Amino acid sequence: MAKKQLKIALIGYQFMGKAHSNAYRQVAKFFDLPVEPVMKTLCGRNEERVRAAAEHLGWQGYATDYRQVLDDPEIDIVDIATPGSSHCEIAVAAAKAGKHVFCEKPIGNTLDEARRMLEAVKAAGVKHAVFHNYRKAPAVALIKRMIDEGRLGTIYHWRAVYLQDWIIDPNFPLVWRLDKEVAGSGSHGDLGAHLIDLARFLVGEIEEVSGLMHTFIKKRPRSAGADGKLGAAGAVEGELADVTVDDASLFLARFRNGALGTFEATRFAQGRKNHNKFEINGSKGSVVWCMERMNELEFYDATDPEGLQGFRTIQATENSHPYMEGYWPVGHIIGYEHTFINLVADALRAIAEDRNPSPDFVDGYENQRVLDAVERSHDSKSWVAL
Amino acid sequence: MAKKQLKIALIGYQFMGKAHSNAYRQVAKFFDLPVEPVMKTLCGRNEERVRAAAEHLGWQGYATDYRQVLDDPEIDIVDIATPGSSHCEIAVAAAKAGKHVFCEKPIGNTLDEARRMLEAVKAAGVKHAVFHNYRKAPAVALIKRMIDEGRLGTIYHWRAVYLQDWIIDPNFPLVWRLDKEVAGSGSHGDLGAHLIDLARFLVGEIEEVSGLMHTFIKKRPRSAGADGKLGAAGAVEGELADVTVDDASLFLARFRNGALGTFEATRFAQGRKNHNKFEINGSKGSVVWCMERMNELEFYDATDPEGLQGFRTIQATENSHPYMEGYWPVGHIIGYEHTFINLVADALRAIAEDRNPSPDFVDGYENQRVLDAVERSHDSKSWVAL
Amino acid sequence: MAKKQLKIALIGYQFMGKAHSNAYRQVAKFFDLPVEPVMKTLCGRNEERVRAAAEHLGWQGYATDYRQVLDDPEIDIVDIATPGSSHCEIAVAAAKAGKHVFCEKPIGNTLDEARRMLEAVKAAGVKHAVFHNYRKAPAVALIKRMIDEGRLGTIYHWRAVYLQDWIIDPNFPLVWRLDKEVAGSGSHGDLGAHLIDLARFLVGEIEEVSGLMHTFIKKRPRSAGADGKLGAAGAVEGELADVTVDDASLFLARFRNGALGTFEATRFAQGRKNHNKFEINGSKGSVVWCMERMNELEFYDATDPEGLQGFRTIQATENSHPYMEGYWPVGHIIGYEHTFINLVADALRAIAEDRNPSPDFVDGYENQRVLDAVERSHDSKSWVAL
Amino acid sequence: MAKKQLKIALIGYQFMGKAHSNAYRQVAKFFDLPVEPVMKTLCGRNEERVRAAAEHLGWQGYATDYRQVLDDPEIDIVDIATPGSSHCEIAVAAAKAGKHVFCEKPIGNTLDEARRMLEAVKAAGVKHAVFHNYRKAPAVALIKRMIDEGRLGTIYHWRAVYLQDWIIDPNFPLVWRLDKEVAGSGSHGDLGAHLIDLARFLVGEIEEVSGLMHTFIKKRPRSAGADGKLGAAGAVEGELADVTVDDASLFLARFRNGALGTFEATRFAQGRKNHNKFEINGSKGSVVWCMERMNELEFYDATDPEGLQGFRTIQATENSHPYMEGYWPVGHIIGYEHTFINLVADALRAIAEDRNPSPDFVDGYENQRVLDAVERSHDSKSWVAL
Repeated sequence: MAKKQLKIALIGYQFMGKAHSNAYRQVAKFFDLPVEPVMKTLCGRNEERVRAAAEHLGWQGYATDYRQVLDDPEIDIVDIATPGSSHCEIAVAAAKAGKHVFCEKPIGNTLDEARRMLEAVKAAGVKHAVFHNYRKAPAVALIKRMIDEGRLGTIYHWRAVYLQDWIIDPNFPLVWRLDKEVAGSGSHGDLGAHLIDLARFLVGEIEEVSGLMHTFIKKRPRSAGADGKLGAAGAVEGELADVTVDDASLFLARFRNGALGTFEATRFAQGRKNHNKFEINGSKGSVVWCMERMNELEFYDATDPEGLQGFRTIQATENSHPYMEGYWPVGHIIGYEHTFINLVADALRAIAEDRNPSPDFVDGYENQRVLDAVERSHDSKSWVAL
Repeated sequence: MAKKQLKIALIGYQFMGKAHSNAYRQVAKFFDLPVEPVMKTLCGRNEERVRAAAEHLGWQGYATDYRQVLDDPEIDIVDIATPGSSHCEIAVAAAKAGKHVFCEKPIGNTLDEARRMLEAVKAAGVKHAVFHNYRKAPAVALIKRMIDEGRLGTIYHWRAVYLQDWIIDPNFPLVWRLDKEVAGSGSHGDLGAHLIDLARFLVGEIEEVSGLMHTFIKKRPRSAGADGKLGAAGAVEGELADVTVDDASLFLARFRNGALGTFEATRFAQGRKNHNKFEINGSKGSVVWCMERMNELEFYDATDPEGLQGFRTIQATENSHPYMEGYWPVGHIIGYEHTFINLVADALRAIAEDRNPSPDFVDGYENQRVLDAVERSHDSKSWVAL
Repeated sequence: MAKKQLKIALIGYQFMGKAHSNAYRQVAKFFDLPVEPVMKTLCGRNEERVRAAAEHLGWQGYATDYRQVLDDPEIDIVDIATPGSSHCEIAVAAAKAGKHVFCEKPIGNTLDEARRMLEAVKAAGVKHAVFHNYRKAPAVALIKRMIDEGRLGTIYHWRAVYLQDWIIDPNFPLVWRLDKEVAGSGSHGDLGAHLIDLARFLVGEIEEVSGLMHTFIKKRPRSAGADGKLGAAGAVEGELADVTVDDASLFLARFRNGALGTFEATRFAQGRKNHNKFEINGSKGSVVWCMERMNELEFYDATDPEGLQGFRTIQATENSHPYMEGYWPVGHIIGYEHTFINLVADALRAIAEDRNPSPDFVDGYENQRVLDAVERSHDSKSWVAL
Repeated sequence: MAKKQLKIALIGYQFMGKAHSNAYRQVAKFFDLPVEPVMKTLCGRNEERVRAAAEHLGWQGYATDYRQVLDDPEIDIVDIATPGSSHCEIAVAAAKAGKHVFCEKPIGNTLDEARRMLEAVKAAGVKHAVFHNYRKAPAVALIKRMIDEGRLGTIYHWRAVYLQDWIIDPNFPLVWRLDKEVAGSGSHGDLGAHLIDLARFLVGEIEEVSGLMHTFIKKRPRSAGADGKLGAAGAVEGELADVTVDDASLFLARFRNGALGTFEATRFAQGRKNHNKFEINGSKGSVVWCMERMNELEFYDATDPEGLQGFRTIQATENSHPYMEGYWPVGHIIGYEHTFINLVADALRAIAEDRNPSPDFVDGYENQRVLDAVERSHDSKSWVAL
C-alpha cells in the first residue's frame, strides 16, 4: 500500500536550500518513514536560476514567487531557507494559508518577528519546525539521552564556542551576512543561535545573561549580493561601507537550574573552520562535542573505578546510537548533511503522527529571546534577566 | 541539451549494494558530470527482496539473474557488489557481453580469478573499475597530490593498520565473511586489500613481503547466510564448525623504490571500529590519515621554520581540496558514503571521456598479487618476491 | 673561581614549599647560573615538622618564626610559600629587613595588601618576584616569543579556562583553601590568577571586565587544617559550616589593545584535573596550550600555503626552545616542577645581574587589580573598568 | 636513626650519566627509601671533564679508570652508563669485585656479551639491574597492573613503534651511535631494545620473529667522537665513510601465549621525536601509550555499557597510580627523568631488602636474544625461533 505523501515547497536554493533539498531527497533512503516526502516546488526570485536549481536538486517544479506555492493546494509544507529578513513575512503568510511551516534559524531577525511567527503558526494550528540541525547529530542526541538517563548528574557548567575564520581579511567584502538589514546580526544570530539552541536542548532555559558584541573590522568593500544588488541605492562596488553586524558575540549566562554558562561566537578565530564545540560538566560526569568531529563525543564518567577514569572518545556510529540504524556499520562516519536528513526524518514523522516537530517555533522564539537579551546586555553593560 | 546517459545494472544489494546505489543516486547532485547516470536495474537472486531493494534504493527495475542484465542491450555498465566468490564469473561474462565492468574489491578470491578477470576486460576492450574507495577520500587524494608535488621527498616508511573488533566474541557466528569459499580470505582480503591499494596508490609497487596470517578463534557456531544456507550439506545451526579464514594478517614489505612497509589487518583489536590508518615518512615530511576521522590528515613539514615544526591537522574540506568543490563549506564534514560518490564521479567521467577509470582491474590484479604473495610467505615462513 | 652565593630562606613547606625547594635544589644542575643558590633556612611554625621537612627537602637549617630569618644577615632572599593570609605581613617585614622578596601568587588576599607589598619592596629598593610559574613552561615562553615576532599578528581573542574537579563531592571538607580568611578567595585567586597572569603576559593589560563568582556547595563539613585548628573557636569537626569562597569564577574582558577575552576558573569540572588551557586567535595565526600537555603547543599559521593549513602540534622540547637547552633531548619531556626551576633560574640570574626578576610584584599587583575588578563586577552586576 | 647507606659509582657522564646522576640525587626527595643513596664516585677517562661533571652533577669524587672504583671497598653499586662496547668488560669485572652491577641497555653489544655478563653476576652472587627505564613510567606501570588484574583479558595483539628523526639529513655525521663497533647496532639496539623490553614486561616472552634491518644512508661524513677520535686510524674529518649500523629495524613476532606482535624502530620518521608508542589489544580491552605524552594512557574497556564504550585518556598522575604518591597533585605532570628516578627507587629498595631489582640482567639477556634472533632472521630472510 502506498504511503501518504507530504508535498513540500522549499523557498531558497543557496547553501541552506541545497542542504534541505538533499535531506528531502535522501531521507526515505535511510529512514523507514510513515509518509513519503515529495519534492514538489522550489521557489526563488530569479527564474533562470531557480529552474536550473530545481532540476539539479531534484525538485519536480519551481516558482518565482512564494505566494504561488501558498496558493497551491497540493503543498503541505513550506520550508523557508532564505536569509532572515524574509522569514517572518513568508512564515506568517504560509501559516495563514494553512501550510505547515519549516524555517531556518534564527527564525526571525528580531524578537518581534519571532513572536509574530510563533503567534501565526499557533493561530493557524499548523505544524512548525526550526532547522536547529546540530541537535540531530547522533553524538549530540546521544548526549541528550545520557543527560536524561542521569549520567551527568547535576549540571554545573556549560561552555560553548562557535569559531570560524572566514572574514578576518579586511578586504573580505560586505556580503549579505554582514548586513544587519538582511542578516539581522552577525556571528550572534548565525553562530551564537546554534549554541543557544544546544544549551537549551541539553542544559535548560537561561535565566540571565551578560554579554558583549564587537565588530573588529568596521568598514569593508561593498560587493553585489546574490540578488546583484549592492545593498544601498547609488552604492559603488568596492567602496568602503559600514559593517552593520557583530564579528563576535560573547556572553555569560546563568541557567534556571543553577548551571553557569559561557558562550562565544566569532568569525575571527584563525584556523577554526566550523568549530562548534561545547563542554558540559556535571556532578557525575562531563561531555565534550565538536562539529568538526561530529561523529565523536568525549565522556568522562566519574563513576568509573578510581584510577581508571578518563575522558573516553565514543564514536557515535553504532546501530544503537540515535539515527544510526539506517546508515553504515560502526566507524563508517556520516557528515554534516546527515544532520539535516535526521531533522527532516524527525519532522516528517511528527507530522505523520500529528505531533509537532522538535525543535519548533517555540524553540525558535525562546532562542531569539536569549539573542535579544544579550543585545540589550551589551547596550546596558549589565546583566539582563530573561 | 540533454546529456548522454550511462545505464547501470548493479549486482548485489547488501552493504556494498546500498553504498553503490547511494553513490549513483547522489553523484550528479554534487558533481557536474558530462554524462547522466541512470539507475536501471538492480540484480539479486531473491525476487521479493530484490524488488523491495530496487524500489527502496532508487532503481528503475530489477532482475533475478545477472544474465538478464547482460542480455539487456541498454545496460552500459555492470557493477558487481556481491561476495567475492561470484566476482569472476559475472565479470568475465559481462566483459564478453560488451559491458563496462565495475567490481568490488578484492576483484577475485584468488590470483587466478583476478588474472582471468583482467584478461577478460582487456580482450573485450571494455572499461573496468575496482571499488578501492578509500583512495577517493578527499584527504587521501590530497596526500596523493602532496606526494606528487614532492612535499614528502623520498619516502622511507609506510606503516598501515586496518583494525576492527566485531568478531572477538567466540560466539559470534560463522557468517559468510568467515567462510573461505565465499569470502576468499578473512581480514586479509577484506581489510588488508584496502591497505595494499592505499600503499600502491601513494608509495608505489611492492617488491617483496614477509607475512603471517592467523586465526585466533578456530571454531564458531554455524549460522544461516543471506541465502538461508548454512554453508554445508546437513549442517545444523549453532553447531561449531571450522573458521576457514584468517582473523588477522600482518606483513613486512619492501617497496621497489626502497621504502619499507608494515601492514596489519585484524578483526581482533578491541575498540577499533573502522580504524584504517596509515603513516608515511619521507625525507621532507610525514603524513598520517585515519578513516575514522576521514576528513582530516596530519602533515609534518620538515621545511617549516626550525623550532616551529609539528604535525598539523589539515581539515581536507576546503573547496580547493580534491572532490570538495561540490559539497559544503569548509569544516562541514562529509562521510563514508562520499568516498563512493567520488569514485563513481571519477569513473563515469572517465568513461564519458573514453579513458579507463582509476583504480581499475590492473590495480585489482596487482593488489591480488600482493595478497597472494603474503599467503605464500605465510606458508613458506620466508620472504616472497613479487 | 667560586661563584657568588645567594642564600635563601623559604617560608612554608607544604605543596608550594616542596615545589620551591625542588627548584632551588635542581636549578644549578640544569642551568649555568652566574650565582650559586644556597638553601639555608626553611621556616615553619611547627618545629618537629619543619625540622623533618628541612632535612628531607635539602635545607641546611630551619626556623620556627619568620622573624628569625629576617634577623639573619646571611639571608639574601626570603621566599614566601605560605597561604595568602600571611603574605603581606611577611613580605613587608622582609622588605624592611632589606631582603629580596619572592612570593607565591596571588601576592595578597586583597588589593590593599598587594598595594602595600608593592610599596614596601619599592621603598626598600629590594628585588621582588612572584611565582606565576606557568609563564615559565617552555611552550608558553615559546608562544611569547612567537607573539613578539609578530607570528600571530593583531590579537583578537583570548579564551582561557582553568578547570579542576577536586571538591565536587559535597562531603569534601572545609579545607583552608575554602576559607576566605586564609585563602582570600576560591577558584578566583587560586586558578583565575594564573589565567590573568598568562593573559597579561601574552596579550596585554585588561581594560574592563564583567564577571560572576559562584559557590555551588554552600556548606561543607569542618575539618582540622594543617595547623590542627578548625577555623573557628568552639567549632566541631564534621559539622556543616559556610563555604566562604567561590567554587567558580568567570568573566569577560576587553583588553586595552582591543582584544576580547573569556576567563573561567572552576573546581567543579568533572574529569579536568589541572586543565589550565588557553587559546589565542590573531589575524595571522592562533595558538593553544594546556598545562596537562605542557610540553606541547598548537599553532595555526595562516601564512602557510593555502590548502595545507592546520593546527600543528609543536613539541617545545628542542634545545632551541626556551629553557630547554639544559634538559634532555627533543621529545624527552619535562614536568610541572620544571616550571619552578625555570622561574628560579630566571629570578636568580636577574638578581645576579642587578635586574628585577619577571614576573615581579608589579605583575602581582596588576593581577590583583583584575581579581578585584571582577569581584566588584560580580557585586554590581555590571562591567567594571580597571 | 640514620639509614644504611648504599654508595654508588657511576661510569659515564654523557646523556645517560646525566640522567642517572639526577635519579640518584632526587630519589630520596620523592620516595621514602629504607636506604640512603650516596653519590660517591663518577668515573670517566678524561680527568678534566670528569672532575667538572662530578662537581656539576653532585658526585663527591671522581675517578679516571673504572678499576679504581672496583678497588674502592666503600662502593656498593657500580652503575655502567657508557656506550655498549664497554659494558661487558666493566660489568664482569665489577661482579668479580663483588659490586652490585647496574647497567644501561642493551646490556651487551652481542648476545655472547650479554650471556657472559649474566653469568658473571650470577657467579658472583651480586645484585644486578638494567635501565629499561620506560617500564617505570607510571602509565606503563599502571598498564602492567591492569593486565595483571585481567582488564585486557587474553592478549591478541602487540603493536609498537619507536620513531625518531634525527639522522635523516645525509650530512649528519658518523657519530658513535652509527658505528657498530661502539654501539653494537643502530635503531635496533637503541630503540628496538626498549620495545622488546616493554613487550616482554607487558605481554610475555617472544617465540619467533621475522625481521629486516635497513640502512637508508650508507655513507656519512666522519666526525670526531666524544673521545676526539674519528673511529679509524688515518681517518679524515668530513670524508665519507660507511655507516655500519641499521637506520631502521622492523619485525613481526609470535609470543608464546599466542599473541601476535609488530615492532618497528627507526631514526627516519620525520616529525617523530621520541615516539615510543605501543598498543595492546586483548579480548576485554585495549591500551595505548606513547612516551611523548608519557603521563597518559588510553584504555578501551569492552565491559563498559554498550553504546558508551570508547578509548579513555587516563592521566596517570593520581596519588594512587604507581610511583605518583611522592610527586605532585593530579594533573601536574612529571617528565622523562622521573622514569629513572622511579627505576632507581625500585632498585635501591630491592637491594635494601636483599631482593634482585627488576628488570635485571636476565631481562637484559632475554632482550638480547630477541635482538639477535631478528638479526639472524634478517640474514636468513626467514622466521627464526628463539
